[in-house]
Amino acid sequence: MKVDGKPYRTIWLSDDGTTVQVIDQTLLPHRFVVRDWRTMEEAEHGIRAMIVRGAPLIGAAAAYGMALAMATDTSDAMLTKAYTTLMASRPTAVNLRWALDDLHERLAPLPPAQRRDAAYRRAAEIADEDAEICRRIGENGLGLIRQLKPRQGERLNALTHCNAGWLATVDWGTALAPIYQAHNAGIPIHVWVDETRPRNQGASLTAWELAKHGVPHTVIADNAGGHLMQHGQVDFCIVGTDRTTRRGDVCNKIGTYLKALAAHDNGVPFYVGLPYPTIDWTLEDGRDIPIEERSAAEVSRIAGRGPTGEVVTVDILPEGSPAANPAFDVTPARLVTALVTERGVCPASEAGLLSLYPERARAA
Amino acid sequence: MKVDGKPYRTIWLSDDGTTVQVIDQTLLPHRFVVRDWRTMEEAEHGIRAMIVRGAPLIGAAAAYGMALAMATDTSDAMLTKAYTTLMASRPTAVNLRWALDDLHERLAPLPPAQRRDAAYRRAAEIADEDAEICRRIGENGLGLIRQLKPRQGERLNALTHCNAGWLATVDWGTALAPIYQAHNAGIPIHVWVDETRPRNQGASLTAWELAKHGVPHTVIADNAGGHLMQHGQVDFCIVGTDRTTRRGDVCNKIGTYLKALAAHDNGVPFYVGLPYPTIDWTLEDGRDIPIEERSAAEVSRIAGRGPTGEVVTVDILPEGSPAANPAFDVTPARLVTALVTERGVCPASEAGLLSLYPERARAA
Repeated sequence: MKVDGKPYRTIWLSDDGTTVQVIDQTLLPHRFVVRDWRTMEEAEHGIRAMIVRGAPLIGAAAAYGMALAMATDTSDAMLTKAYTTLMASRPTAVNLRWALDDLHERLAPLPPAQRRDAAYRRAAEIADEDAEICRRIGENGLGLIRQLKPRQGERLNALTHCNAGWLATVDWGTALAPIYQAHNAGIPIHVWVDETRPRNQGASLTAWELAKHGVPHTVIADNAGGHLMQHGQVDFCIVGTDRTTRRGDVCNKIGTYLKALAAHDNGVPFYVGLPYPTIDWTLEDGRDIPIEERSAAEVSRIAGRGPTGEVVTVDILPEGSPAANPAFDVTPARLVTALVTERGVCPASEAGLLSLYPERARAA
Repeated sequence: MKVDGKPYRTIWLSDDGTTVQVIDQTLLPHRFVVRDWRTMEEAEHGIRAMIVRGAPLIGAAAAYGMALAMATDTSDAMLTKAYTTLMASRPTAVNLRWALDDLHERLAPLPPAQRRDAAYRRAAEIADEDAEICRRIGENGLGLIRQLKPRQGERLNALTHCNAGWLATVDWGTALAPIYQAHNAGIPIHVWVDETRPRNQGASLTAWELAKHGVPHTVIADNAGGHLMQHGQVDFCIVGTDRTTRRGDVCNKIGTYLKALAAHDNGVPFYVGLPYPTIDWTLEDGRDIPIEERSAAEVSRIAGRGPTGEVVTVDILPEGSPAANPAFDVTPARLVTALVTERGVCPASEAGLLSLYPERARAA
């Protein structure tokens, strides 16, 4: 998508053919800075520190991390080290495992001399494939949106949580792809953007990318969505997911579950946009997903533009008060109206997912 | 309750017998400052700007505002002006109306020369009555807490939203009064404190007052409570209310409804602590309560301690992204396990409330 008129992806290979470049998402929305990754360790740090974030982008970033490792050292030892190091950077992200397994399986049988080029080639394929997958999620979601009528006024009101836009992927986004497609198709649409504490990905990233694309939107506190749904001001919710179980339970940014409860209580459709690598076919029950506990400092400190425009981080808790920071929650499938994937739309259930991915059916 | 070992209320008459003093809650938790109110206009501004906040405290503050008006001018014209001016300061707060009606009814029939002393006397009575009411809410809530067993570990885990502690009242608090009483009685209790965006009353005020009293607590993002409830880490929720309808619908800080949905979905008791002036006997359905829309700047800007300890306000949204800020939501009675008032505990229903307040039954 575009930033100040120039088309960007979130991750790309620089002209030197080795360095990987990414948009530093920790500085948005205050500053737009492109970072260079020249080593696997820089990629690992970038994933861990959420310079890149969002399940699909993490997969592409991990693949490029493997490529950077191979650019330095194509030995079996490095292959193992890069796999292990990158895997530990974000334990909840199933795309991370998927991309690393894919690269490792392809590279391990190759003679070391062929590994560097093969790794870069495969990382580029993964990035291109992700952009195409997201475009298709957008098309399929657009079909759902075309069936909705505004409850109030002339325009459709969507609500989204966290950032599942193009910044969370290589391009287009997952949850936001249908919104971009609806907007591009001339459907009047407005987005309620959950701030998404504690890291504020909604206020920082979703609002920024919607603004850059010209999509009408309004930022709200995470607390406000239930009230808006009670009053007919939300026509549908759409969110992304970091991990979806075989039965359709959805592990997404902390607070997603609360919005799904409110949508259910008010008859508002609750959609989840997801690419196939996000589906964990080995897991039945979302309650078995380990939830990442992140630093309390994400709750107690917040960055913004200070009085003279510089980015300042401030402490917002009383000195000495502790904070806890579970990063994800699980929305049970019963609260999800439909899953929107690159292959189509289905109910959030094993039968639903298997209708789109019949090759995943278990042997009888 | 105590601040650094010294007992305080949130509002009191200074030694000069005219000036009203309050704790400036907009500066907490970063600075502890006492403000002087010498005029009705200062009281009106203090209520509007949330230097004092919390339904019961707003009632006492409005009563003292009337007293300050009478200290300047005891005419009928001033009585009307003060009533009208103060009434407009926080339209959602039913205690505001209650206190102003009470003062107006008492003062209007009096000769002007008697109005000043009568107003101060009645304001002090309202403050004392509020402290006693809250102490009783605490006793009644303690009875509920004694019946609970921890789902995990040795201590009870409460969850609260916003600030309904002593800072929201004259003393003790409403939702927190039972927690203070349980803590004082030696019951091991820990409180999950919802940050409560956008004004952060939980992170700023609830955490501060619990810390000052020595009650174990942990601040969490508003998004986290549902996840904690799914995992057995919350034994009960308890919140305050700005306005409660005859049928037991509860209008409280935005986001309360989402926590009540999660409590209901996970079989966690959801209690509401309230003093009788918070009950609006004229209203049946919470959906008829007008919801205050506050400034977008409360969403887009946040204050904290900067790098050198000074309080800095920063902008956290992309430049130009709009924000919306509904300040309250309504939790339907069906999601409330029990109401805890100064007279006892009852179901959230008209029958329940009338069992405690039989004098409010309508003539057959």
